[in-house]
Amino acid sequence: TTLSISCFCGIMFRLAARAISAIPRARTAASWLARQDTFAKRHIGPNEAQQQEMLKVVGVKSVDELMRKTIPASVALNRDLKLADPLSEVDVLKRLQELGSQNTVYRSYIGAGYYNALLPETIKRNLFENAGWYTQYTPYQAEISQGRLESLVNFQTVITDLTGMQISNASLLDEGTAAGEAMTMCINATKKKKINYTFLVDSKCHPQTLAVLQTRAKFLGVKLVIADHKTWDVSQPDVFGALFQYPNTEGTVEDFSALVARAKANNVLTVCATDLLALTLIKPPGEFGCDIAVGNSQRFGVPLGYGGPHAAFIATSIDHARRLPGRLVGATKDSNGNVAYRLTLQTRETHVRREKATSNICTAQALLANIAAMYAVYHGPDGLKNIASRVHNLAASFAHAVESNGHSLQSNVFFDTVNVKVGGGLTVDQVLAKADAHRINLRNQGNGFLSVSFDETVSETDLRDLINVFSTSDITTAGFDSVTASPKNHLSAFVRQTKFLQQPVFNSYHSETDWVRYAKKLENRDISLVHAMIPLGSCTMKLNAATEMAAVSWPAFGSLHPFAPLSQARGYQQMFEELKSDLREITGYDEISLQPNSGANGEYAGLVAIRSYHQAIGQGHRNICLIPASAHGTNPASAACAGLTIHAVKVTASGNINFEDLKAQCEKHSNNLAAIMITYPSTYGVFEDNVKDVCDLVHKHGGQVFLDGANMNAQVLQCRPGDAGADVSHLNLHKTFCIPHGGGGPGMGPIGVKKHLAPYLPGHSVVDTSLVGNSVSSAPFGSASILPISWSYIRMMGNAGLRSATAMAILNANYMKARLEAHYPVTFKGTNGFVAHEFIINTAAFDDVHITCVDIAKRLQDYGFHGPTMAWPVPNSLMIEPTESESKAELDRYCDALISIRQEIREIQEGKYPVGNNVLSNAPHTLQVVSSDGWNRPYPREKAAFPVAWLRDVKQWPTVGRVDDTFGDKNIMCTCDSVSAYAANH
Amino acid sequence: TTLSISCFCGIMFRLAARAISAIPRARTAASWLARQDTFAKRHIGPNEAQQQEMLKVVGVKSVDELMRKTIPASVALNRDLKLADPLSEVDVLKRLQELGSQNTVYRSYIGAGYYNALLPETIKRNLFENAGWYTQYTPYQAEISQGRLESLVNFQTVITDLTGMQISNASLLDEGTAAGEAMTMCINATKKKKINYTFLVDSKCHPQTLAVLQTRAKFLGVKLVIADHKTWDVSQPDVFGALFQYPNTEGTVEDFSALVARAKANNVLTVCATDLLALTLIKPPGEFGCDIAVGNSQRFGVPLGYGGPHAAFIATSIDHARRLPGRLVGATKDSNGNVAYRLTLQTRETHVRREKATSNICTAQALLANIAAMYAVYHGPDGLKNIASRVHNLAASFAHAVESNGHSLQSNVFFDTVNVKVGGGLTVDQVLAKADAHRINLRNQGNGFLSVSFDETVSETDLRDLINVFSTSDITTAGFDSVTASPKNHLSAFVRQTKFLQQPVFNSYHSETDWVRYAKKLENRDISLVHAMIPLGSCTMKLNAATEMAAVSWPAFGSLHPFAPLSQARGYQQMFEELKSDLREITGYDEISLQPNSGANGEYAGLVAIRSYHQAIGQGHRNICLIPASAHGTNPASAACAGLTIHAVKVTASGNINFEDLKAQCEKHSNNLAAIMITYPSTYGVFEDNVKDVCDLVHKHGGQVFLDGANMNAQVLQCRPGDAGADVSHLNLHKTFCIPHGGGGPGMGPIGVKKHLAPYLPGHSVVDTSLVGNSVSSAPFGSASILPISWSYIRMMGNAGLRSATAMAILNANYMKARLEAHYPVTFKGTNGFVAHEFIINTAAFDDVHITCVDIAKRLQDYGFHGPTMAWPVPNSLMIEPTESESKAELDRYCDALISIRQEIREIQEGKYPVGNNVLSNAPHTLQVVSSDGWNRPYPREKAAFPVAWLRDVKQWPTVGRVDDTFGDKNIMCTCDSVSAYAANH
Repeated sequence: TTLSISCFCGIMFRLAARAISAIPRARTAASWLARQDTFAKRHIGPNEAQQQEMLKVVGVKSVDELMRKTIPASVALNRDLKLADPLSEVDVLKRLQELGSQNTVYRSYIGAGYYNALLPETIKRNLFENAGWYTQYTPYQAEISQGRLESLVNFQTVITDLTGMQISNASLLDEGTAAGEAMTMCINATKKKKINYTFLVDSKCHPQTLAVLQTRAKFLGVKLVIADHKTWDVSQPDVFGALFQYPNTEGTVEDFSALVARAKANNVLTVCATDLLALTLIKPPGEFGCDIAVGNSQRFGVPLGYGGPHAAFIATSIDHARRLPGRLVGATKDSNGNVAYRLTLQTRETHVRREKATSNICTAQALLANIAAMYAVYHGPDGLKNIASRVHNLAASFAHAVESNGHSLQSNVFFDTVNVKVGGGLTVDQVLAKADAHRINLRNQGNGFLSVSFDETVSETDLRDLINVFSTSDITTAGFDSVTASPKNHLSAFVRQTKFLQQPVFNSYHSETDWVRYAKKLENRDISLVHAMIPLGSCTMKLNAATEMAAVSWPAFGSLHPFAPLSQARGYQQMFEELKSDLREITGYDEISLQPNSGANGEYAGLVAIRSYHQAIGQGHRNICLIPASAHGTNPASAACAGLTIHAVKVTASGNINFEDLKAQCEKHSNNLAAIMITYPSTYGVFEDNVKDVCDLVHKHGGQVFLDGANMNAQVLQCRPGDAGADVSHLNLHKTFCIPHGGGGPGMGPIGVKKHLAPYLPGHSVVDTSLVGNSVSSAPFGSASILPISWSYIRMMGNAGLRSATAMAILNANYMKARLEAHYPVTFKGTNGFVAHEFIINTAAFDDVHITCVDIAKRLQDYGFHGPTMAWPVPNSLMIEPTESESKAELDRYCDALISIRQEIREIQEGKYPVGNNVLSNAPHTLQVVSSDGWNRPYPREKAAFPVAWLRDVKQWPTVGRVDDTFGDKNIMCTCDSVSAYAANH
Repeated sequence: TTLSISCFCGIMFRLAARAISAIPRARTAASWLARQDTFAKRHIGPNEAQQQEMLKVVGVKSVDELMRKTIPASVALNRDLKLADPLSEVDVLKRLQELGSQNTVYRSYIGAGYYNALLPETIKRNLFENAGWYTQYTPYQAEISQGRLESLVNFQTVITDLTGMQISNASLLDEGTAAGEAMTMCINATKKKKINYTFLVDSKCHPQTLAVLQTRAKFLGVKLVIADHKTWDVSQPDVFGALFQYPNTEGTVEDFSALVARAKANNVLTVCATDLLALTLIKPPGEFGCDIAVGNSQRFGVPLGYGGPHAAFIATSIDHARRLPGRLVGATKDSNGNVAYRLTLQTRETHVRREKATSNICTAQALLANIAAMYAVYHGPDGLKNIASRVHNLAASFAHAVESNGHSLQSNVFFDTVNVKVGGGLTVDQVLAKADAHRINLRNQGNGFLSVSFDETVSETDLRDLINVFSTSDITTAGFDSVTASPKNHLSAFVRQTKFLQQPVFNSYHSETDWVRYAKKLENRDISLVHAMIPLGSCTMKLNAATEMAAVSWPAFGSLHPFAPLSQARGYQQMFEELKSDLREITGYDEISLQPNSGANGEYAGLVAIRSYHQAIGQGHRNICLIPASAHGTNPASAACAGLTIHAVKVTASGNINFEDLKAQCEKHSNNLAAIMITYPSTYGVFEDNVKDVCDLVHKHGGQVFLDGANMNAQVLQCRPGDAGADVSHLNLHKTFCIPHGGGGPGMGPIGVKKHLAPYLPGHSVVDTSLVGNSVSSAPFGSASILPISWSYIRMMGNAGLRSATAMAILNANYMKARLEAHYPVTFKGTNGFVAHEFIINTAAFDDVHITCVDIAKRLQDYGFHGPTMAWPVPNSLMIEPTESESKAELDRYCDALISIRQEIREIQEGKYPVGNNVLSNAPHTLQVVSSDGWNRPYPREKAAFPVAWLRDVKQWPTVGRVDDTFGDKNIMCTCDSVSAYAANH
């Protein structure tokens, strides 16, 4: 199972270790020269006067006092870090322009799973750059998330229609991890014995996919055989699954139907990694019997972004629906009997299944899936086919031209990628030199082959230039007209016979006006940060500033292929070095990897580093992972994916780790203890006093400490995981460092490690990142194009700004806690009675009137709010995290709403309104319900609709009534087809 | 009264006559190479299949047949024009980038009324680049326009607070025209005899203001005396008004209080042209007795944009409220007794007052006013003062440095502009050469003076560079620290004592999160093109495509000062030449001026050209303007502004010009006939057959023909005003050529003329535009930064696209007319029974049940729609113009709504619902009303709220009930103060 990728040398450069540009310290210039309009003031909600009022309510004299009483002295930082002086918004944009200008955008024909694409300008402006689309949370509160849920169903329909499969999830991180998840699905689906079990992978898959599969297989104990599929023997009893690429990484389209039939006959599951644009022209994998299809939807309008973020996909047959990883959107009915969308089959999810999980996928790539879906909505089936045909004609014309010039083709059956055996009097180096002179990137496939992947951006001039690059003399106009006159169809043996995307949504919005209104309709159905606070405990919905977002859509950052030579990405590399330096300072770690492209992927990468380290020091047998019962469910799921055995550590009544239990377990498992995974401050929202003791204890027993960075935003500039004694943490850049949630992704989960783990940080099979560990993602630097967001945030905040942000996050939480604790019990507090940046209110006391945390969250929708985290980490509770970006006025509105709801519960308890038919049980109320002629509720309409006065000024309404979870799970409807069929029948 | 501006030579370049780049014609390349995704398909609503269905309903076989039967053969074009082949969206963006790269953005210290400004990135993204803010119409339908109305009240409050005046309008076109409007107000207000009457203007006003005032005065018969205010004798009986600049154009702040007192004693009205940022620090004109204040709000965050668009202002005392030109937003109460905003005192408006109007102002600069208002909302009073103080400190430090270096200052009393008498061993040319080497633009004030205007963008480095430019050796760090250590306050004699912007709205939204939510709340109160069609007859609300809008916010187009040397604006100049060439082709005229920055200003410029021509050929006595009774009210208003006497021409019952009456009037006025103003197709939506005859007749009598371009979108590529025989037309680029309406501006009104009028096209006092006529706007090329929109539109559409757009506009109108005429009488039709691009339905038949066109328009709001043009050009009618961008589905929804409303009217006629208390009389219904516990209407709630099924899918709600116009006009409340006082008392 040796991975053999010899080729990409033509586009591979070693990352020169580059000193971080010296950080200039300002001399003592006249203070008036500095702009008063600092970004920190814009980012932080409460102003000075509000802070004073809030401190009074909290019962402390100063912010410093609150910090002293909240953060244990044993870990408190109390000093500045080596961060640059803060830049103003205008100066950070200038610096980003400088960095951008250090990237060189060549025309890329590299392919390998990443293609240039045209993002329609209207989708760019009205969706990609629109806070109403990128600042929503994951759509767990379905009633106020119908817009993006519908769009994600569109995405699922695009995937199922084009792949010919029956069900698709709502996106995965990248094609490599999608392949890994597909392998895991095969493991779970197979009935074969899991001893020496073997997964076959065709050697002509994309190299980055092979690398990610190798990592996955290694720690799951799967035997991965990478070999030419023509040599496969699927009748071997150990073989449970097989994966191939269609078209393959060299561009060839091969007929796998016989192989798939043989596999099926031998109970071997088949996975097809494929390309959506090709599938508009060629027979889809579902039509020749594949069990699973995976791929990347990037080329449906999403910028290359130097590797991400993009929305990968995974699709399968309905039989495997419950094995699908990640989020799946389906239709159900709401309390009024209308169609409503929701996340379906949530019992599959990691946070529910915990150590029984077989996937740790949480974050998807919702924003990017929405772009890809809208690209299909805007172009429609004919538009997509036109684009694909033109791409194929470009490739065919090019093939004709290079053959005429004395080169030969590896294959005559291709869609967009022509693999050229260089001849015609030219050497590979000569062609590459000519390409470089034309600012063109080709892919060196090795053995004298150069491949050229075409895409929709290629113009007539581009084609001519490419032909010239492969020629000793420039083509004449007559010659060009001749080779382009009637391009051959190289896919005639594979012609797709079935129609796709015939649903109305893909055939109605092809004028810009129509599309804009459709997009606006969906946008306006969702609550996002542009409407109100979204105080999700453990999820940190803070400001995603426009300045931070600006560079993401600049071509200088968006148009780089992830495998472009590093010399063309100097701006990115400089930014990475600066960001890593900042993150090292902020975390107290020695090295950072930017590769993991989600929090869960970061957890996995961290555990892989720990396991690799143990193997390297002869402790490879260590396989026990301790996880406190209070941990986020992703922790045990990640540990399971890394092949670890999980043991839970008890938690005290006050929410801390039960140190006695920990001790006992450490001693019991001392020989096999691999790691502990802890969260700090804890998932109960408390800074535990003894975090250092926990780390010491685990270290004493040979274990490593993984400190979950989900709550890093309560630590920044106040304390550091590295100082607490942890060995590795992941960072959720989409929580602490301002990357927007995008309605359920993208995320970014870099990890920081102590020196001894640095050699085990993920490397890459194509690009030399100067790190050498096991790959966890397809792209070398994860979702590179959103890193400017976090880089900008840190550069604009500086030491004082970041310290203040953390303090304000803690002050805001304590202010809300102080206002609410007379009305709801606040379960967990620190030694001095304060909470960290979030807190839990217990809602179990209302069982008598059948009111749960869910009813309260739904009722909050009637107040125009998004509910807090429900029923986690304790059942029947709400976990509230306001973040530092919310001002006192907004905190007060939210507190007023919760206090008003408490009064509404009291009215039920006092018998004023009946159990089961009151404003909470019936929440949320749509405007159709409150304006209905058939109103027959025991309470007034205005009580339902406008329970507090400010709602008459502005209110974001739920568009459906409460969704029926049971119905949705029983009746799986995950594409537009099934929904319209349901709607027609009801 | 000679205008004497000798100076700007340092920054003045002659526009080299530049050949338009040769338009490449594509050779016959393989057709598949062209992208199928053409912009024309995105711009035009109905697809091929829909067109076929619509043609059937209209009763013709083809689009060509419809064109033949609609457009008279005598004018039909029937050929292609010399336009470039259409570019795709991606290619047009590339070309725009090329053009942008040909502009060179120097650091500008030119000042003269235009300053660099920092548009906060969040305002840029969430407002300036947000279709939800820029695609609304003028807020005539108040109930669905509360968002921008509130924002415009904020603007008015900024203006009144900062100027110290009592009432401000909601913006004017530019500072020059604002000064002109102020002069007109003085004319109207004075009781002095209007013989030889004199308006005094201080010579140190901005030169472009002087030029615009000269044009205005010339044709109004006012004697304009431009002289040093110290020489003024306000006791002269002929003097009725006086205008000065504060700070003046050289930067000096002078004390005008004694002068103003003297003027007042002599019944001379005083106008102060002033600067909003300076007014945060210095005593405002309202506090030393000025009657009127004018200026530009550009530096409140609006890009320079090479001259515009920006929002100018005019403010005055409450006594002069009814003389204020332009739009004025005020509060009133709605049908539920709540505060609601509306356009107040509309009886002042040009379309109402017609030939009695003293101003022809229609379009304002609403979008730019909203940006300026939000800039103040975001910074608040303290933030604004901080910015102003820093600017002043920069100027003071610079002044200190240059004095130390041996230069001298013209004045020691300045805010942001330092006027330096060059000395210190340097010549003016040497300093200018050094500046050029540093890519710095200074202003050459003549006589050895160079001025430097500071603004908020200036950094420490910039200041240092400027000091070095004025020095023979570079300043040391110690020297720099010394001159910046404690800048002198040069304004101590003028310190502002009064607070400003103390209202909550300017003190609540200073975090980005808070501001974004406030902006989103306002956005969501308005119906714009992102929600539904806005079929305003004569106003053309077509698609404003994202690609067309892209370049407007690029610094390469946004950051140029209008008086920057032409050599730095080569990209702009090239674009102007291409746009003018295209417009010449499209109109059939010989020359184009881009200077007029609104339609009305274009009308004025055209009439000024006619009058100038007549003067030049010894026919200066010609002063009669014929205008058909059906003309838009702006026509007579413009004619009045140009000093013409208006005579109305009768209209036939079928809506055409009464040719007999025209003949009679031509004969009667033959000796004095100056012009006729006609609209084609007519304002009744009909292509008149005899337009050529009309032109011939008028020419025969020595008159010139002004053909109003408001309906140009029904002519493009189908017929041309130049071919019809007209001499001059204005073009509403914001109607026909896709510039968005911005909620009431910006607009652009270039004019095209036949050769004989070309010498009279507006020139400019500062920049040599190669034209030499009378200036009508402050900026040489009008609102230059929005011209890329129209340029892009034409470049992407090409001959076929534009021809098709016009045809589809006509098809869409005829389709709606065909569907509606069974339900409402369609008053005016062409010879063959078809209408042009718009049509009028008569609603007078419902008088019996007290239903008017207003009730129908308000009821349309309940259907989620914006009403058509009401009661114009015929009383009690609705004029519907769907435009080509609307698809059949949307047209059908609108028709269905109108047909459903007709049925609702029938129910009243049949007695089912009472007169005066039915869904129409009570329309619109807010969601508070339909969900109210106190519902007591005789019809069901759902009938009010959801009269058709699709409203349950999506509906944009009115946020207030019907506004009370009478109450609002009686109780003038035009600032936030007065509104909150009203709200507190009710």
